[in-house]
Amino acid sequence: MSSVESVSGLTRLLAIIGDPIARVRAPQLINRELISQQRENVLMIPLHVAADGLRETLEGLRHCQNFSGAVITMPHKRAVIDLLDDISPEAQLAGACNVIKRLPDGKLSGTLYDGEGFVAGLQLRGYEVAGKRVYLAGAGGAASAIAHALASHGVTELIIYNRSEPAVLELAANLARHHPGLVVIHGTHSPAHCDIVINATPVGMGEDTEQAFSLQHLAPGTLVCDIIIYPEKTPLLLAAEQAGLPVHTGEAMLSAQISLMLKFMLES
Amino acid sequence: MSSVESVSGLTRLLAIIGDPIARVRAPQLINRELISQQRENVLMIPLHVAADGLRETLEGLRHCQNFSGAVITMPHKRAVIDLLDDISPEAQLAGACNVIKRLPDGKLSGTLYDGEGFVAGLQLRGYEVAGKRVYLAGAGGAASAIAHALASHGVTELIIYNRSEPAVLELAANLARHHPGLVVIHGTHSPAHCDIVINATPVGMGEDTEQAFSLQHLAPGTLVCDIIIYPEKTPLLLAAEQAGLPVHTGEAMLSAQISLMLKFMLES
Repeated sequence: MSSVESVSGLTRLLAIIGDPIARVRAPQLINRELISQQRENVLMIPLHVAADGLRETLEGLRHCQNFSGAVITMPHKRAVIDLLDDISPEAQLAGACNVIKRLPDGKLSGTLYDGEGFVAGLQLRGYEVAGKRVYLAGAGGAASAIAHALASHGVTELIIYNRSEPAVLELAANLARHHPGLVVIHGTHSPAHCDIVINATPVGMGEDTEQAFSLQHLAPGTLVCDIIIYPEKTPLLLAAEQAGLPVHTGEAMLSAQISLMLKFMLES
Repeated sequence: MSSVESVSGLTRLLAIIGDPIARVRAPQLINRELISQQRENVLMIPLHVAADGLRETLEGLRHCQNFSGAVITMPHKRAVIDLLDDISPEAQLAGACNVIKRLPDGKLSGTLYDGEGFVAGLQLRGYEVAGKRVYLAGAGGAASAIAHALASHGVTELIIYNRSEPAVLELAANLARHHPGLVVIHGTHSPAHCDIVINATPVGMGEDTEQAFSLQHLAPGTLVCDIIIYPEKTPLLLAAEQAGLPVHTGEAMLSAQISLMLKFMLES
């Protein structure tokens, strides 16, 4: 669909549901991807919905027969779980969901691609994680999903660092239950002896000039990753480039997630 | 907004809600009008909603802060009345509503432009109704709204014809209550001595080859109107042209309604 004039009675709708919504980029990114996939009668729209309106909005969308699915963003990723008919193991594990689809009978099914999207993003750029020793900063929703996905894809050691310790312990216990072979280590602000280091905290987002962790003890060749999308080069990634380390931006995870989400909403 | 790529987090939404929805033309017509009005961040989308999902859909839309309003089409024009917080006298009178708007607090307000749209469409083409003798075929929702609007705009005599008589009696009684000066006559299939004749029944719609009423006794110069949009030239209008009578198609009413609806949803 190249022009708004092609919106017709045959148009199927995708949405992104969040609050605030003004600055989301999913409509532009996904509509561009839909055009490139020649899905001419599918359109993504924004829906600005506050926390207290999420339930009613989803109940309404169940009844919109040309609604196919939605990307779920802040602050709804946890709350949405309780409003769905079916959730994937990934979403269940993380207690969060970032994409839902509407089945023909109005049932809503959800999953979470934060973890699979991150791993797919690495793979798209030619990086494998199997057998690697990986450092992960963060123990929140995104970090958790990434940790589980890394474990599923064969990472052998995972060093987790987070400012708040209880979250690390909880994540470590959870990983131990689901991936008994994985070595989980409680890390510090200054990783060493890793193949890959990842920032999955909000540190460095937007105008924040802070660096998520120290790069001081990393060996040459260690891949430095961030899942933050704006700025594309966070203080962490800028410091990595300065130190001559390879970097992997949030953009790769985003592209990979967009492909996975479209497939989920439109193909299954 | 000239391209789907301009859909962003800032986009305000209008909808058309109906069942079926595949063949509605409002998205194309209204998005084209929005472009010509340079309302660059407003987009109309279709919502395919069955009768049993109308309540939930409207409850959901109350919570979508970037939803501004919706055109309501079949089969919801009567049912929607009970789901709104506020309805105009026109909608109340007709017991039907064809456009709603969302106020900033989530309240929904509705009105009906079938009548005013028809009169505005005539005026746009240079036809006045004040002081005229008008024949109207139909006594359903649209006919009713048109009858009241004609009376408000100063028609002096209204001849109403409908296959089912009780509906005529009910409409006549209703008109008498609201427009005591108006002469209402129970008409036949073959009008005579009129300035304007109007088809407000579905006869002649789509593939229907029937003619809504006879033109046999009309004087030269009698204006023959139809509110049907497809085909543009109904069997009635084709016969009128053949008889050398001036015709007025449903397109004029549609254009006038679109302007009135956009103003209602976006400006007030």
